[in-house]
Amino acid sequence: MRLTGVIPPVCTPMTPDYQVDTASLARLVDHLLAGGVDALFVLGSSSEVAYLTDAQRRVVLDTVVGHVGGQVPVLAGVIDMTTPRVLDHARVAREAGVSGLVATAPFYTRTHPDEIRTHFRTIAAQGGLPVYAYDLPVSVHTKLSAGLVLGLAAEGALAGVKDSSGDDGGLRAVIMGRAAPFSVLTGSEVTVDSALWMGADGVVPGLGNVDPHGYAELYRCAARGDWEAARAEQERLVRLFEIVRVGGSRMGGSSSGLGAFKAALHLRGVIDCPITALPQTPLNDDETGRIGKLLAAAGLL
Amino acid sequence: MRLTGVIPPVCTPMTPDYQVDTASLARLVDHLLAGGVDALFVLGSSSEVAYLTDAQRRVVLDTVVGHVGGQVPVLAGVIDMTTPRVLDHARVAREAGVSGLVATAPFYTRTHPDEIRTHFRTIAAQGGLPVYAYDLPVSVHTKLSAGLVLGLAAEGALAGVKDSSGDDGGLRAVIMGRAAPFSVLTGSEVTVDSALWMGADGVVPGLGNVDPHGYAELYRCAARGDWEAARAEQERLVRLFEIVRVGGSRMGGSSSGLGAFKAALHLRGVIDCPITALPQTPLNDDETGRIGKLLAAAGLL
Amino acid sequence: MRLTGVIPPVCTPMTPDYQVDTASLARLVDHLLAGGVDALFVLGSSSEVAYLTDAQRRVVLDTVVGHVGGQVPVLAGVIDMTTPRVLDHARVAREAGVSGLVATAPFYTRTHPDEIRTHFRTIAAQGGLPVYAYDLPVSVHTKLSAGLVLGLAAEGALAGVKDSSGDDGGLRAVIMGRAAPFSVLTGSEVTVDSALWMGADGVVPGLGNVDPHGYAELYRCAARGDWEAARAEQERLVRLFEIVRVGGSRMGGSSSGLGAFKAALHLRGVIDCPITALPQTPLNDDETGRIGKLLAAAGLL
Amino acid sequence: MRLTGVIPPVCTPMTPDYQVDTASLARLVDHLLAGGVDALFVLGSSSEVAYLTDAQRRVVLDTVVGHVGGQVPVLAGVIDMTTPRVLDHARVAREAGVSGLVATAPFYTRTHPDEIRTHFRTIAAQGGLPVYAYDLPVSVHTKLSAGLVLGLAAEGALAGVKDSSGDDGGLRAVIMGRAAPFSVLTGSEVTVDSALWMGADGVVPGLGNVDPHGYAELYRCAARGDWEAARAEQERLVRLFEIVRVGGSRMGGSSSGLGAFKAALHLRGVIDCPITALPQTPLNDDETGRIGKLLAAAGLL
Repeated sequence: MRLTGVIPPVCTPMTPDYQVDTASLARLVDHLLAGGVDALFVLGSSSEVAYLTDAQRRVVLDTVVGHVGGQVPVLAGVIDMTTPRVLDHARVAREAGVSGLVATAPFYTRTHPDEIRTHFRTIAAQGGLPVYAYDLPVSVHTKLSAGLVLGLAAEGALAGVKDSSGDDGGLRAVIMGRAAPFSVLTGSEVTVDSALWMGADGVVPGLGNVDPHGYAELYRCAARGDWEAARAEQERLVRLFEIVRVGGSRMGGSSSGLGAFKAALHLRGVIDCPITALPQTPLNDDETGRIGKLLAAAGLL
Repeated sequence: MRLTGVIPPVCTPMTPDYQVDTASLARLVDHLLAGGVDALFVLGSSSEVAYLTDAQRRVVLDTVVGHVGGQVPVLAGVIDMTTPRVLDHARVAREAGVSGLVATAPFYTRTHPDEIRTHFRTIAAQGGLPVYAYDLPVSVHTKLSAGLVLGLAAEGALAGVKDSSGDDGGLRAVIMGRAAPFSVLTGSEVTVDSALWMGADGVVPGLGNVDPHGYAELYRCAARGDWEAARAEQERLVRLFEIVRVGGSRMGGSSSGLGAFKAALHLRGVIDCPITALPQTPLNDDETGRIGKLLAAAGLL
Repeated sequence: MRLTGVIPPVCTPMTPDYQVDTASLARLVDHLLAGGVDALFVLGSSSEVAYLTDAQRRVVLDTVVGHVGGQVPVLAGVIDMTTPRVLDHARVAREAGVSGLVATAPFYTRTHPDEIRTHFRTIAAQGGLPVYAYDLPVSVHTKLSAGLVLGLAAEGALAGVKDSSGDDGGLRAVIMGRAAPFSVLTGSEVTVDSALWMGADGVVPGLGNVDPHGYAELYRCAARGDWEAARAEQERLVRLFEIVRVGGSRMGGSSSGLGAFKAALHLRGVIDCPITALPQTPLNDDETGRIGKLLAAAGLL
Repeated sequence: MRLTGVIPPVCTPMTPDYQVDTASLARLVDHLLAGGVDALFVLGSSSEVAYLTDAQRRVVLDTVVGHVGGQVPVLAGVIDMTTPRVLDHARVAREAGVSGLVATAPFYTRTHPDEIRTHFRTIAAQGGLPVYAYDLPVSVHTKLSAGLVLGLAAEGALAGVKDSSGDDGGLRAVIMGRAAPFSVLTGSEVTVDSALWMGADGVVPGLGNVDPHGYAELYRCAARGDWEAARAEQERLVRLFEIVRVGGSRMGGSSSGLGAFKAALHLRGVIDCPITALPQTPLNDDETGRIGKLLAAAGLL
């Protein structure tokens, strides 16, 4: 069965002392399900997975899988440097009851395409769950070529790809080259209508935390062939996406983007505290105020 | 007290089924100590730290700290993506009894220099041990500027730096800008004489696994001012360093380099098995043969 | 007036001794005009501008402007490292009678966004013609941000942008942020339908040399709102675009792409000789044969 | 004959309206010759070659070659994107009477190592003068590997290399691997003593414009084996090199570095006007004042 629709990477709310705020997390899950999403992706980049300790990752898995109770599939990121460490995360995720694993190519190490293939093949063979490749060159510093992804798909090592590379030419090559039932998901918040137009199956939008209804509506419009409405909804979301740039050059892109999602969730009353994990720079009051205005302009406050 | 001399990043021998081979690891430690090294660095890049599970990291720490029994200081790499995960590794390393921590800047995330400062300050404040910055742009995709390193040194957050950036101009800026007792170590195997000439305190050579006597001799020559002899020894080691290129373009740089060190240790009878962790591509017989010839040419077989 | 439609970057046919083959160039222009293109772009990357001497650039300008005789607008690339050198090319192009200039950000030098702004403002002020920014990070190693482009557009320094960055999120930000009559053109051959869907005004497809009818048809379908037909035509062109990968890893991407366009034009009988400028590696007979098969599959042979 | 010693890349003084200031340029040549340099390198990166029109490049060649009158060799940069354009510059330089050509790998294009070899071989075959490879990854975005350089040296296509990559391990590999009389020159201002220590033949220091006596003294100390004195002089020059960082993050690295050299030459009374070519951001009065203080601290004002 092919994974389709809106699958937001679930933010990880924290308490002021940087612990996972499970109550807020459960509320966020409710907010997403109420928004009409089709599945959840926990422990992705937008979940601050890179900042969570293994113990915190476990809390997130247990909280979300438990709270969702099987209403929708839950995918889990198993983000780590190499195969053995990824396999450890995969075991924990599988035991927690998730439906699929999302893994990047190796990073930190200097890796050959053959080694990337070995990596995904090993996770597929030993992970015990469908594996989705996560193409995120901005973090991993390797682009998964269409040829590599399609080859792994053809041999059954991959169930799908989450393409956050921003390279829609590459995305299209995978869409056109795949055999069913390989799932192609875009990770770009701002070109969902065109990705769906090309034949993508769904979207994994960080911004979907803030406005799940918006992405669900966009997807439904596209699914019923009302592309004009899909585009109008997409353009509204493009304007909302400006929240990730409010932090500007005084902080890293991770702080600015993840901080914006959490600030928006806090302003919308979904989570108790907008704090992001160390060493991220927090947004200040002025920046939070500008996020509030963008939310209001999008009809979300 | 300033850390000085030869501090090899200790390779992690493995059994054919990819478990830490503690007997071989103990023999490797003996080999290094017999070679005259001044301290040991476990869980660095040359230790395949990126490929070791947390359980394996613990085995390495316990094996080496236990086997060394305080003869020399043992530093531990606490390599992970961000501050909270690094702090977890730091706790384990501290409990194992190491003398210092070696941490990179955050990676995978998109980070601002202010956030790198927060990262190292937090590790220094909560790690409970001296912290050495590990400058490794090829893995971390961030270069630690001399200004950043010197600022953290001045405020006491860093005890030293291991510079594996290959940028000897930057290395010199740190050497000239530091106040004692900040320790400057080069991670480049092939410019140790010149780094010491500029005033560096020591070296962390991956190739030191294969030929610890060579690096110890190089360091002693430099320490007594016999620079001609230091250079001659360095040039011998430069020729030996060709082993890391034997794997060539059919594998990633990590496989080629780490595989070569392990193949050489195996050929020299120090470790039982030259296997490297997944997903690295293993060297084949022809390549291992060429490594043997380079070892012989360097007087090591 | 806003530039719209299909504006191919015209290849530069050469004789076997690497001179501009003006007869073939004229035939290529006829082939493109017969294909229904809306304007021509000479001296772009696909024209091998980086390989042409100044004298050859002049020959190309005179040949094409003369042969076109005002039937369609002709834009000229003024590709060089910095402002003063670009201004020299701009003077020559203006004297040749072109309608607009296409300039990249500075390259070779290490440049600040403020300096990129100064660069485009100076070309606009002194170039005497409308200026189109050419966003080509793969060559220039700088991405023009949407904010920078829109700022220059608002102050009248830019008449449009040719976006060959592959970043369709950025393309959309420019489309949504512009005020008429700023022209947004995609340089990506494989996402033209989606770029037009987002509101782009046209396309500058290197592959349009080989199949101008195809891109003209795609554009017409989109213009009349028949998006299904546009997509079908685009997908045919995506399959044809495989010709640029035939050269594979034994040559650089420039050789492979430009060589494929010229080989196809030669096979289709448009130009006399498929040679590419030095130091590019030529395609061999086997590779040319595979290009022939892809042309046949696309209905072009 | 092997090129050795101090070979500064000669800055290009300009009048306030951005023309080559030939009178200042002649004074700068006198200043350099009086400083004891061994040869001159015109039209290098520090000469703002990327910003000079072809006409200006010719003025520089004629002015310097004429003014030097054969007292020392003059090398000329032939910096451009690809082989045909480089050959045009080579012809002009040869006619002007220079002794050698300095060429980078192709840039702007995407190039394979085989194509880089073809590039240098063609320049060597058709340029009519000894060719020095200019390894400058920060501008060219390609690193010339030691293997590639040594291969071209062995076949006689290269007379030497100017290594501005900052990679002293690579520099050493070339030094150890070459057969006489291949000339190895470092382009790094701050590691000249160690490069000479490794066996380099000379240095091409941008900072040598400001303090030619310093680099000549450094070289003489090294040549007579007084390495302590060489190091002391080098360390003085390292402190002086801080002038290139005064412009900081408000401008590009080219503006900051080239602006600093010119400001210093102006403050020292060598050139009439410190202006740099467009689109570089000029240093302001405060920044110029700080450069003055660094000059004074180095004993140069």
